[in-house]
Amino acid sequence: MTDISMIEAAQARLDGHVRRTPLLSSPFLDEIAGRRLFVKPECLQHTGSFKFRGAWSAISALSPEVRAKGVIAFSSGNHAQGVALAAKIHGIPSVIVMPSDAPRIKIDNTRAYGAEVVLYDRANEDRDAIGARLSQERQLTLVKPFDDPYVIAGQGTAGLEIAEQAKELGIEKADVLVPTGGGGFISGVALALEAKAPDFVVHPCEPEGFDDVARSLASGRIERNSTQSGSLCDAIITPQPGAITFPIMSRLCGSGLVVTESEVLHAVALAFNRLKIVVEPGGAVALAAALFHGETLGETVIAICSGGNIDPNVFRLALDQSAI
Amino acid sequence: MTDISMIEAAQARLDGHVRRTPLLSSPFLDEIAGRRLFVKPECLQHTGSFKFRGAWSAISALSPEVRAKGVIAFSSGNHAQGVALAAKIHGIPSVIVMPSDAPRIKIDNTRAYGAEVVLYDRANEDRDAIGARLSQERQLTLVKPFDDPYVIAGQGTAGLEIAEQAKELGIEKADVLVPTGGGGFISGVALALEAKAPDFVVHPCEPEGFDDVARSLASGRIERNSTQSGSLCDAIITPQPGAITFPIMSRLCGSGLVVTESEVLHAVALAFNRLKIVVEPGGAVALAAALFHGETLGETVIAICSGGNIDPNVFRLALDQSAI
Repeated sequence: MTDISMIEAAQARLDGHVRRTPLLSSPFLDEIAGRRLFVKPECLQHTGSFKFRGAWSAISALSPEVRAKGVIAFSSGNHAQGVALAAKIHGIPSVIVMPSDAPRIKIDNTRAYGAEVVLYDRANEDRDAIGARLSQERQLTLVKPFDDPYVIAGQGTAGLEIAEQAKELGIEKADVLVPTGGGGFISGVALALEAKAPDFVVHPCEPEGFDDVARSLASGRIERNSTQSGSLCDAIITPQPGAITFPIMSRLCGSGLVVTESEVLHAVALAFNRLKIVVEPGGAVALAAALFHGETLGETVIAICSGGNIDPNVFRLALDQSAI
Repeated sequence: MTDISMIEAAQARLDGHVRRTPLLSSPFLDEIAGRRLFVKPECLQHTGSFKFRGAWSAISALSPEVRAKGVIAFSSGNHAQGVALAAKIHGIPSVIVMPSDAPRIKIDNTRAYGAEVVLYDRANEDRDAIGARLSQERQLTLVKPFDDPYVIAGQGTAGLEIAEQAKELGIEKADVLVPTGGGGFISGVALALEAKAPDFVVHPCEPEGFDDVARSLASGRIERNSTQSGSLCDAIITPQPGAITFPIMSRLCGSGLVVTESEVLHAVALAFNRLKIVVEPGGAVALAAALFHGETLGETVIAICSGGNIDPNVFRLALDQSAI
């Protein structure tokens, strides 16, 4: 199981390879939020999301012999790009299994980061069977998107940075808001902060209708989303909390915050206008929660913007809807 | 005159108040540029531009008695916001003199950062006379936008950061590209690098038709722009190089690079898509030069994106024109 020593070991492996993202702020956002608000822009991370941390952590933890054979991942999104680039820099092959109807730009980007993309037909082919066959034939190691101790440890390095940066700013107490899908990111961050900033409370943030983590934390058992499609926040939509991540979240997280799509788009536009960063909808749910649902939070909030891989048309929509 | 000890003293005064912006990169941009390209995103600085550094440096260098009376600046742009916020944090009054036809949003932002905005009628009133009267009546200190040793020293702190960050990345030689208006930013950066990374060559970057610095460096004497309006890159349009900055640039800068507006818009779109940052046209000229005019440059280029205060309609235009 992931613990602080695993996160610190991941940080040592990531040193010099991962970007230390700054903490940003704006008096205009403080005013909207009604409290002091800091933003950790993981959209500025390599490949445009925090996923690079976990991918690097998992790949760098493999033995050289196992690693040399290569890795495999199932993803059409940020995890795919994180694994592809981390593998490329390690000089090893990566195979990313994607549905054939994934957006062309995501397929192209993943290839451009050095991966071999294997497409499958969602209707007629079994993704897991394809993955299992490839893994076996080529002895590839599977890098899971969230339910893996090394991936969680890698994501936790962002939590170590938050603890250090908050200390530099003299912040002794804060609510830390994290966009949450399967729970790998928030689990890592929560474990890091438990050790390094125990007065910080971590909250998962999700879009309305896809709030499996908030509901699971409230009921004390794993709850599912009724659907997996139809959200602008596609990057953080998963069926349910992970088997490894749920116990960590249950032990360490405060209550979940839920935001509307309209609030998310407004947050994307405000991040453009006031912070000069590009955030994707899924990556902006924590910022939206901080801006528009802060009633239950304390005086200082740190919201992570987890990714920036947004479709330009969705970005235009955010600017249009917010009349910015 | 500004020297390295003044820049280091400014860094000490700025410590804890200025944001240390990271160095970003993307393999996609390296490929377009045909070389290794790093971007220093000063758009992520407080108030959305590097101007906050110079403003803080100048204000913090005043004696407490003089400072307490307040400061004044002439600007409708990034300098106004930098001075306003730096004054506010110092707890002193600031007066910003702006033309009454300045964009509403810029007036509002400057007020929101805490300044008293004094509007004048460009056609019938003399800006300098208004400023002189206010300065005298209230004993306000003028903070110039570029032709001031303390402002140059403040801008130079970005150069110190570049030297440190390049060293961490093992970069021993680089061309450093800087968006250039009056020359305060590039002068500070060049002085810092002369001391800390003497093998780096600094180049001013300007938009076509407003290349007074490139022409002045080529001819060896101060050349003027024939017009001061009509550029998307308004943030860096000045009539001519400064009296203090020109000798520094002449001594330390490599040749100037000139880009088209279409290249600038493309750079804005690529910064959105590949770096997840928001850059204004004037702030993107160095990135555009690195991407599209790198023929004469070496293997490693560091381009500063100097500001991000872009009109959303211009941002839409950049996305549209670049078909991103």
